[in-house]
Amino acid sequence: MNEDELIALLRPLAGQGALDLEDDAALLSLPQGQDLVISTDTMVEGVHFPEGRIGGGFSERLLRTALSDLAAKAARPVGYTLNIAWPQGRNPIWIKGFVQGLHDAQSAFDCPLLGGDTTSTSGPLVTSATVYGRVPSGKAVLRSGAVAGDDVWHTGRLGLAEAGLAIVRGEPGSLPPEQAHFAEEAYLRPVPRFVFRKVLREYATAAADISDGLLRDASHIARASGVALDLFPDIVETAGAFGDDYEILFTASPQQRESIVAEAGKLGLPVTRCGTVVDGEGVFVGGNPAHPAGYNHTLT
Amino acid sequence: MNEDELIALLRPLAGQGALDLEDDAALLSLPQGQDLVISTDTMVEGVHFPEGRIGGGFSERLLRTALSDLAAKAARPVGYTLNIAWPQGRNPIWIKGFVQGLHDAQSAFDCPLLGGDTTSTSGPLVTSATVYGRVPSGKAVLRSGAVAGDDVWHTGRLGLAEAGLAIVRGEPGSLPPEQAHFAEEAYLRPVPRFVFRKVLREYATAAADISDGLLRDASHIARASGVALDLFPDIVETAGAFGDDYEILFTASPQQRESIVAEAGKLGLPVTRCGTVVDGEGVFVGGNPAHPAGYNHTLT
Repeated sequence: MNEDELIALLRPLAGQGALDLEDDAALLSLPQGQDLVISTDTMVEGVHFPEGRIGGGFSERLLRTALSDLAAKAARPVGYTLNIAWPQGRNPIWIKGFVQGLHDAQSAFDCPLLGGDTTSTSGPLVTSATVYGRVPSGKAVLRSGAVAGDDVWHTGRLGLAEAGLAIVRGEPGSLPPEQAHFAEEAYLRPVPRFVFRKVLREYATAAADISDGLLRDASHIARASGVALDLFPDIVETAGAFGDDYEILFTASPQQRESIVAEAGKLGLPVTRCGTVVDGEGVFVGGNPAHPAGYNHTLT
Repeated sequence: MNEDELIALLRPLAGQGALDLEDDAALLSLPQGQDLVISTDTMVEGVHFPEGRIGGGFSERLLRTALSDLAAKAARPVGYTLNIAWPQGRNPIWIKGFVQGLHDAQSAFDCPLLGGDTTSTSGPLVTSATVYGRVPSGKAVLRSGAVAGDDVWHTGRLGLAEAGLAIVRGEPGSLPPEQAHFAEEAYLRPVPRFVFRKVLREYATAAADISDGLLRDASHIARASGVALDLFPDIVETAGAFGDDYEILFTASPQQRESIVAEAGKLGLPVTRCGTVVDGEGVFVGGNPAHPAGYNHTLT
């Protein structure tokens, strides 16, 4: 498949400002009073996604996980650009699956393709999605706003994606079939929590998505905010080190507890209080210093 | 070198809105009445850049060629994001050179780093630069505005980068030393023609940078505009197939000839009239259909 054939496949994904993928650039204009939020993710086949899986799973996961960063900043999506370095001789069926996965993910979150670049490589598939979102000026929720005394919260259920990856890798699991399906979906098709953006804008002092594991993402908020996060031991024990859940970790004043639980309840998205912001630096678990080993999405 | 060490190296490159590279996102706000222009380029070591060269040459060329797309749209740069898939075990000296090259290119064009993502790969280095520019709303010059009767022009001197690549590859050249230096620079450090943006906004009906070769880039304008471009044979003979010059190909009404030459003269950037826009489709040379073979930046 040459570049023109690939672009023809991608053209139906193009949105306003993409110039029908006929130009070397895209145009974007934001409504007045809105900031642009940009985030970008790179995935390598065999590192971030199992080799040999159909292309649709790869591209869905790529776009959904990139969009998760926008959701964690309380933004809504406006579009994305795509870079692909294809292994030479990649099967066209796989490529069509890849395009279908993009279609499915962008349709689910109303986020059209704006442009991109493709090339070939002698190595594994390397692909990047750069996603663009918008947020009322000054309303983006950053990693840097947590203050001592804040509660620490996470959305959703942690650890499900870990079970899902085991299933994807063909490892024997102990989950009943229905739960196994949910777990596989959680790994392959994580849901960026755009539904939560108004709650974040209203109540959160800092936020990040949980992609590197609870401990490590907590350490990111701690460092950016110049504070320490002290997490509850029971939560860390069950879900501290594994990433890829793409839930949102956020901090908020204890005065907002009831409001947060009520608003999250209306959205059908459970929230769990999982720690406290304290003076200091780094991450603690039940008052003891923790040293997050890091989670590198490495499959092997 | 781990990701934290790399980010520490990159942090001095970060501009306003980059959130000190401590977040998973960047923020950008444009002055009112401006559109955002986005363009993205991917390069693979060994395909778009010779293996074994120092990292600074790679990154300078990556950023400069990406910025060239903004210049061709008559935009000015505001920032860029970067994706890097490193070969495992890449020498830290090379990486420091890569960062230095980014520094040099972004300083030259006032275009700070906004964010990015890094990972490792078992294959060759794959890196993408996504560049952001701004232009007064509606003033971006697209590929799609050429009309029959327009002149076709290019800026600068075509073919110099081809001689430069030969030198970079260590092939014997016939150029005198001073010209050889200019040719090598033209290949390694192409100059995005931001200086020309006001002339483009004022006079150009369509524009593209010449990255794939004169014939092929002319075919892009022809297709996007729904016209044909008939190029002068003498120019095609000397510089038709080779790309990588990163000069600007543009179209304009014949009534503007004197103004264009005068304005370009003031900027010290020569312009050459190289063809005519006619009814039809595709590219012609001296009235005969041409079939641009395409230029894929392939070194081997």
